[in-house]
Amino acid sequence: MQIVIIGSGNVAYHLAKAFVQNKIPLAQIFGRNEEELKKVSEELGTSYSTKNLVDSDLYIIAVSDNSVEEVSEMIPKKDCLVVHTSGSLPKESLKGDYRKASFYPLQTFSKSKELDYSKIPFFIETENEQDKKILFEIASKISENVMESTHEKRKYIHLTAVFACNFVNHLFARAKEISDSQEIPFGYFLPLIDETVQKIYEIEPRSAQTGPAVRNDKRILELHEQLLHGESLEIYKTMNHSIQKMYEL
Amino acid sequence: MQIVIIGSGNVAYHLAKAFVQNKIPLAQIFGRNEEELKKVSEELGTSYSTKNLVDSDLYIIAVSDNSVEEVSEMIPKKDCLVVHTSGSLPKESLKGDYRKASFYPLQTFSKSKELDYSKIPFFIETENEQDKKILFEIASKISENVMESTHEKRKYIHLTAVFACNFVNHLFARAKEISDSQEIPFGYFLPLIDETVQKIYEIEPRSAQTGPAVRNDKRILELHEQLLHGESLEIYKTMNHSIQKMYEL
Repeated sequence: MQIVIIGSGNVAYHLAKAFVQNKIPLAQIFGRNEEELKKVSEELGTSYSTKNLVDSDLYIIAVSDNSVEEVSEMIPKKDCLVVHTSGSLPKESLKGDYRKASFYPLQTFSKSKELDYSKIPFFIETENEQDKKILFEIASKISENVMESTHEKRKYIHLTAVFACNFVNHLFARAKEISDSQEIPFGYFLPLIDETVQKIYEIEPRSAQTGPAVRNDKRILELHEQLLHGESLEIYKTMNHSIQKMYEL
Repeated sequence: MQIVIIGSGNVAYHLAKAFVQNKIPLAQIFGRNEEELKKVSEELGTSYSTKNLVDSDLYIIAVSDNSVEEVSEMIPKKDCLVVHTSGSLPKESLKGDYRKASFYPLQTFSKSKELDYSKIPFFIETENEQDKKILFEIASKISENVMESTHEKRKYIHLTAVFACNFVNHLFARAKEISDSQEIPFGYFLPLIDETVQKIYEIEPRSAQTGPAVRNDKRILELHEQLLHGESLEIYKTMNHSIQKMYEL
């Protein structure tokens, strides 16, 4: 079976790497960014192109949601399976006469960071049983955690991930901005952050809540508001309001 | 040296446990909640009281910020050291003729969760060198990470911790609310959450940002807003606005 990955961003890179590490042969990596493709191709020992898409049985489009449709139109073949890796798009975003599917890895991908692929949940949606079998077989070589998911459910999985990952990372970024402003090393907070995550393996996040808002400690809340400004102040107020609503304080 | 811990909440429990585990003798655990104190005392093999505070060299007041002043007035002795564990109060919140200090462990404490005390940073502020030595010696038996800190700096440490821990946990709680509403197991998101935290050990959080807001993917941002309501929608808008401001999008 011939497989091509299309894309030169973080998701494409990590998928290609997971394929190579798990001995799933890649016929080609295809994309626009020649510099990136060259780097990836040298690291993984795969061929690449920015111009000529090779003939293949499976095309995995791992590009940003905005580009999926445009890229999907570049595939002229009919007798093939084309998948995208988006958490939010329906498989019908793929525009062509081929078989369509969704192949969504739930993870945050940064190029410079090694990943344990075996723990990444894959959510798959296909048009028929045969394609489902193909994609389950491939994903199962990479991960222990492969599931079916409708587009409707996948949208909510992606939305949950935005809260649990993207927004969490942004809180770290704003937190570091505050500690940097006082020359407090951010490393001090790493054991606290680890424990915050360790906790939710054992306790419901709702029951694990600590801090001034859930204690309704108005004096501290006011003090903190005086120390903050701009977007961090907005976040502070919004989060405290939401905490107090959740616990009916 | 006689040591008493005052309080029956999470911080008092975990401090008492850390003391006992590290063979620092406790003369007494003192507090209002007899039921809790009895449980802790039975688990740790320490004596407790809700009425008679024993004579001691060091009193550690581990109660909520709102109660520190009131509790500190209960200590009639002069020749002793009294400390509180608050991240936000000055040591002058302690009202008495004794020596005063701050003894702030940077961690999130939940009773039902085991903790690795050796990784907890302790921030200490005293009136004199002798008391500093006493508190450093005690804290160093528990943790590898003991530092001095002024009240001014401690306020910002606490504020940073609210973003990096309390708000992060609340995002987990709101995320779980979303996934629960669609009967999506929250366990799916644990590898993603782990990776989100693992990343900041290697990459600046600012550089690790992923997701629709930093890609300025307006179509997804609008779709997500349609799926949300109430406090989660407010959080969604505030966080995206802050992300887009940070990256000047």
